[in-house]
Amino acid sequence: MEKRIPTRLLLEEKELPKHWYNINAVMKDKHEPCLDPITKKPCTAEDLSKVFCKELVNQELNFTDEYIPIPEDVQEFYKMVRPAPLIRAYCLEKVLDTPAEIYYKFEGNNTSGSHKLNSAIPQAYYAKQEGLKNLTTETGAGQWGTALSMACAFYGLDLTVFMVKCSAEQKPFRKAVIETYGANVIKSPSTTTSIGRKILEEFPNTTGSLGCAVSEATEKALSTPECKYVLGSVLDYVILHQSIIGLETKLALEKYGVQPDILISCIGGGSNFGGFIAPFVKDKINGTKDIRIVAVEPKSCPSLTRGKYAYDYGDTGRITPLLKMYTLGNGYIPASSHAGGLRYHGVNPIISKLYHDGYLEAVSVEQTKVFEAAVKFAKCEGILPAPESSHSIKVAINEALKCKQTGEKKKIVFCLTGTGYFDLNAYTAFNNKEMQDYVPTDEELQKGFSTIPTI
Amino acid sequence: MEKRIPTRLLLEEKELPKHWYNINAVMKDKHEPCLDPITKKPCTAEDLSKVFCKELVNQELNFTDEYIPIPEDVQEFYKMVRPAPLIRAYCLEKVLDTPAEIYYKFEGNNTSGSHKLNSAIPQAYYAKQEGLKNLTTETGAGQWGTALSMACAFYGLDLTVFMVKCSAEQKPFRKAVIETYGANVIKSPSTTTSIGRKILEEFPNTTGSLGCAVSEATEKALSTPECKYVLGSVLDYVILHQSIIGLETKLALEKYGVQPDILISCIGGGSNFGGFIAPFVKDKINGTKDIRIVAVEPKSCPSLTRGKYAYDYGDTGRITPLLKMYTLGNGYIPASSHAGGLRYHGVNPIISKLYHDGYLEAVSVEQTKVFEAAVKFAKCEGILPAPESSHSIKVAINEALKCKQTGEKKKIVFCLTGTGYFDLNAYTAFNNKEMQDYVPTDEELQKGFSTIPTI
Repeated sequence: MEKRIPTRLLLEEKELPKHWYNINAVMKDKHEPCLDPITKKPCTAEDLSKVFCKELVNQELNFTDEYIPIPEDVQEFYKMVRPAPLIRAYCLEKVLDTPAEIYYKFEGNNTSGSHKLNSAIPQAYYAKQEGLKNLTTETGAGQWGTALSMACAFYGLDLTVFMVKCSAEQKPFRKAVIETYGANVIKSPSTTTSIGRKILEEFPNTTGSLGCAVSEATEKALSTPECKYVLGSVLDYVILHQSIIGLETKLALEKYGVQPDILISCIGGGSNFGGFIAPFVKDKINGTKDIRIVAVEPKSCPSLTRGKYAYDYGDTGRITPLLKMYTLGNGYIPASSHAGGLRYHGVNPIISKLYHDGYLEAVSVEQTKVFEAAVKFAKCEGILPAPESSHSIKVAINEALKCKQTGEKKKIVFCLTGTGYFDLNAYTAFNNKEMQDYVPTDEELQKGFSTIPTI
Repeated sequence: MEKRIPTRLLLEEKELPKHWYNINAVMKDKHEPCLDPITKKPCTAEDLSKVFCKELVNQELNFTDEYIPIPEDVQEFYKMVRPAPLIRAYCLEKVLDTPAEIYYKFEGNNTSGSHKLNSAIPQAYYAKQEGLKNLTTETGAGQWGTALSMACAFYGLDLTVFMVKCSAEQKPFRKAVIETYGANVIKSPSTTTSIGRKILEEFPNTTGSLGCAVSEATEKALSTPECKYVLGSVLDYVILHQSIIGLETKLALEKYGVQPDILISCIGGGSNFGGFIAPFVKDKINGTKDIRIVAVEPKSCPSLTRGKYAYDYGDTGRITPLLKMYTLGNGYIPASSHAGGLRYHGVNPIISKLYHDGYLEAVSVEQTKVFEAAVKFAKCEGILPAPESSHSIKVAINEALKCKQTGEKKKIVFCLTGTGYFDLNAYTAFNNKEMQDYVPTDEELQKGFSTIPTI
């Protein structure tokens, strides 16, 4: 008799990973280096250290060590909230009447509501180790701001969060959580920075943008003693920290004898996706295991499926280093959608390179279809998912239904990055059938591409 | 060398309880029976079955079986969200610099945000088994309404939730979650019931009350075919279902060799408190273990610490059976506070009897002190707690600080019933120093006592 796999594929504390996994070390063809925005030459550690913490810069530039130790102090924090559950979706399988096995790694069981805490903790830890007193960052939807405020409260660091003005007003409760953890929230654009004042002078009615908030947070970091700027996605060191997701998933699957056929996760800047797939990539590159890896993006912001592979800035203000990545152009403004965490013009360089080299698949989905899947999932699996995470649910359901057609017992594993507790305006819009889909025209994309610099 | 207790005292799926624990079976002196509101005679199974599901009535009147089997179907659902983590609060201990060991059972890791789901699932299950198609209930703060909407979505039952009007307006997101799970939310008082219409005629500007919502839900159940009324606290069968909390806690403590000295939890109607302490009560009654059991209530609603032990109605509309309990009087209206789940005039009969017989302690705390403790906890343990749950945190911290004075290494275990994600207006009021405390005068209490019926 086949042994029943438990609903939760538990790991014990002693089984928790003690190292992160560095994809860069195992890529035969490395991605191209990031370039200084002025000189257009590869950034040195010294260049990057002006803005970023030293240890993070070391990690960003490490292309050799496959495993990088997780500091003991960070391991201690992880133990409070991890391992994140890996759950066999027995109820969803039953509802879909599929022979497929569906598993999800649930990263939403912490107060930040998402996987963002995995990187916030080490970033605050390294800042503390470096002797810093303050950090700055930006936040859009608010998950990253919440995670970093928790990390800074834990390590006793002051934090200033530049929160995109319209987000701060649409999501006052996110702002309230961040403030409860003791951080200073400034609606961006603000009069506290010269770039903010300049933007406000030019566009007095602007509701802000992530690009502008990045610029303000960077300016503030550069002009404040013992202060640096941190961010929660796009860079390689964030993917490194997020590899804890994939490492735990791989360990638990192995412990219970499950060999995955398809890995699925949503993609914005790439933080959860990169971390989730990290320890599975080597086998894919070496061809030693037959596994499909699928990135899911919103149709309104199709960086992988319709973007260009080119050097581009990370922000609309064009002050960050240039990254070689799939991009819709730094000037592309995605239509307003309810998956704020996926509204980014580019994709992390590691993932972009892997996609370019044919190791990954990408699909894009419409948000009304995503919310249909989210509600179906919530009703049988109990968890109200974040709109971002529901992109993965939608594609996992599609794959499971294909198995129903073919009779295949594929093992589908997806990452459920977070909960939708702060996205209830979106659910209300969906419930009231007031939600719309948006697919950019080729002309609109062309306008974005025209903002990609020529290198 | 002493073996380090892990941060999370994990239980495996195969260790999960297969039976609930029935305190009534082990009480030497049973509590007095509930009485019919008209005849004032003990309610029979037949009386109760008019409103409640048959199996729940059987459980309510079961004073003999110590263990009652959890239906396999309910066990399957539990496996998705349980075991709830039992966490050693290493970080809080460090911040307090106490020799005490602090543990908390965290019941907030599910979309209802609290322990309420533990009873919602079996209640919906038994309704389905009985062949019912609809359920009705009331909700105040919204945790119970959310939990039951999840349970009804899972079992395919229609649900009507009468939500206290001011709550529905103050917490639109709670309403949105309930609706997302497919339930029909009616603001109470409403024009859909005769009692609602009567109240609206008399008090056109009323913002509603739990008592009125109970009456509307009961009327709706009685007037709808294949429909019954369910509720999430106060009755003994709810405590029975919630015993899963205490059973898991006890199992995990035993597994890791921890003998608790003090159990602490907050108390409103008694659902989490009764469930948490259930399997520990026998040793307390028999005097075989030296353990303190402490109930924590808000100073604004001091049912145990300042109430009377008497027969009273469960609702302000005086239509429910009479329960022998500690009560402030069915007409007592607690001051508006941020711990909506603890604003109830009475306490479950089992707990009332145990308290009356000297097996339990009770303390009351002010809400500003509770929020101070909540923020301290959130910053070191990561979880943003519900205001209700933070009552337990406050008293756990007090006890740990006493240990700091005496040098005792007491083992303190408390129940963290839920998260504060839907209570951010409260946190904002606290952050802005706009929160007030309220302690009723003896005269105000006297006014409440005058509404207790003479039996």
